[in-house]
Amino acid sequence: MITLAEARTIIEAAEKSAVSISRPMNIAVVDGGGNLVAHVRMDGAWLGSIDISINKAWTSRAFDIETGALAKESQSGEQYFGIHASNHGRVIIFAGGIPLKRKGQIVGAIGVSGGSGKQDQTVAAAGAAAFV
Amino acid sequence: MITLAEARTIIEAAEKSAVSISRPMNIAVVDGGGNLVAHVRMDGAWLGSIDISINKAWTSRAFDIETGALAKESQSGEQYFGIHASNHGRVIIFAGGIPLKRKGQIVGAIGVSGGSGKQDQTVAAAGAAAFV
Amino acid sequence: MITLAEARTIIEAAEKSAVSISRPMNIAVVDGGGNLVAHVRMDGAWLGSIDISINKAWTSRAFDIETGALAKESQSGEQYFGIHASNHGRVIIFAGGIPLKRKGQIVGAIGVSGGSGKQDQTVAAAGAAAFV
Amino acid sequence: MITLAEARTIIEAAEKSAVSISRPMNIAVVDGGGNLVAHVRMDGAWLGSIDISINKAWTSRAFDIETGALAKESQSGEQYFGIHASNHGRVIIFAGGIPLKRKGQIVGAIGVSGGSGKQDQTVAAAGAAAFV
Repeated sequence: MITLAEARTIIEAAEKSAVSISRPMNIAVVDGGGNLVAHVRMDGAWLGSIDISINKAWTSRAFDIETGALAKESQSGEQYFGIHASNHGRVIIFAGGIPLKRKGQIVGAIGVSGGSGKQDQTVAAAGAAAFV
Repeated sequence: MITLAEARTIIEAAEKSAVSISRPMNIAVVDGGGNLVAHVRMDGAWLGSIDISINKAWTSRAFDIETGALAKESQSGEQYFGIHASNHGRVIIFAGGIPLKRKGQIVGAIGVSGGSGKQDQTVAAAGAAAFV
Repeated sequence: MITLAEARTIIEAAEKSAVSISRPMNIAVVDGGGNLVAHVRMDGAWLGSIDISINKAWTSRAFDIETGALAKESQSGEQYFGIHASNHGRVIIFAGGIPLKRKGQIVGAIGVSGGSGKQDQTVAAAGAAAFV
Repeated sequence: MITLAEARTIIEAAEKSAVSISRPMNIAVVDGGGNLVAHVRMDGAWLGSIDISINKAWTSRAFDIETGALAKESQSGEQYFGIHASNHGRVIIFAGGIPLKRKGQIVGAIGVSGGSGKQDQTVAAAGAAAFV
């Protein structure tokens, strides 16, 4: 489980990272059940990224994988191609979703959306690093 | 428009109210376009209320009305009966959604879900009162 | 069939009626296939009524009936109760949708949403009256 | 914000462009919150393009980008591949959606659908050019 206090610590770290690269982001944290614990949209962040940040976090927990890694297996011609049409549109297959681990076990995930894939990944990683 | 900082102030006030009545809640704030600014699920709050809190806020802005007031007009036999099936399930017709006003104009809304209608309304009102 | 020019004439008449009762409205016109021809949201009209105006028009054509009349048959205990959950949320069962007839045949419909059921009906009727 | 009068000016310009290339189009305008202000389907335009025109406009505002530009980043192997499955099918990743700017800020968007990508883009650009 991830408490709201822990989700806030994760989000705070991710926000600092987003500020440091001058890119407003949507940031979401889900728990071990894949259910949303907290979400923030920084001022000026894309509206379309609300859904994506929440679902990157969901995807990351749902398949226990970084969404950037899932992306490689989900391109045209690869073994999971088409997976993004499953689960009623909740599966996001590009970078920015990272599982949150405690004692080696995945207990939730963070999802970030609002910039390039590289930016989203950077900010998500900063958030995940704050979870111990 | 409502900034993330403002949304946090609103949520903080709502959380205090939720704690004071010993009831964990989902709390969401949307802006003038009905788009989510921030959401929190307090520890132990209902999973099914994630969607409801977000959509109470949306409903309240979408129809510029408290959801508890909309409820009265949406019962069987009343003028808006059936409205809860519109807008792809986003319309919530029970108490806990309150418009946020600035200088007399509605610029967003708060939605709270996790307890009785009365509890949800109490917590939402506390959040709305913190917006000036 | 209803041309775009005809839809605009209908909408213009409905708008005049909305202005005359000082109530901004969403107004939509669909053709004989139930497909949208035109929609307008008057300044200040409810965001949640975009969907409802379009689907009142759709409902009115889909069942060849005024939505206000369908409402009576769709209340709890009546023969069509529950119909609002069918057709993926497109069935609106309160006043404001009126079929458009030419030579006694239904060739489309108008849907209006943004006020009380009575206001919606008044504005829709004004629009329908402009179609000959 | 974009008024209905402004949306009509935009649509009128887009329609003229569509007539000049002899291609009936669906044309939609959304405001800064991504919410529909107005839509028209020109006589003979594709039925399937009603949804696409509205959602091209939404996409363009939701990610503050032309949908034709988003297309390049959303092909298999690119950084946003799969984004078209997010946001409940509202993300359209081919040309025809253009943000509307005022004083350098994006305040809405136009979406056009009914022809080739090139035709849609031409008509959308004509509409956007009429917004000042």
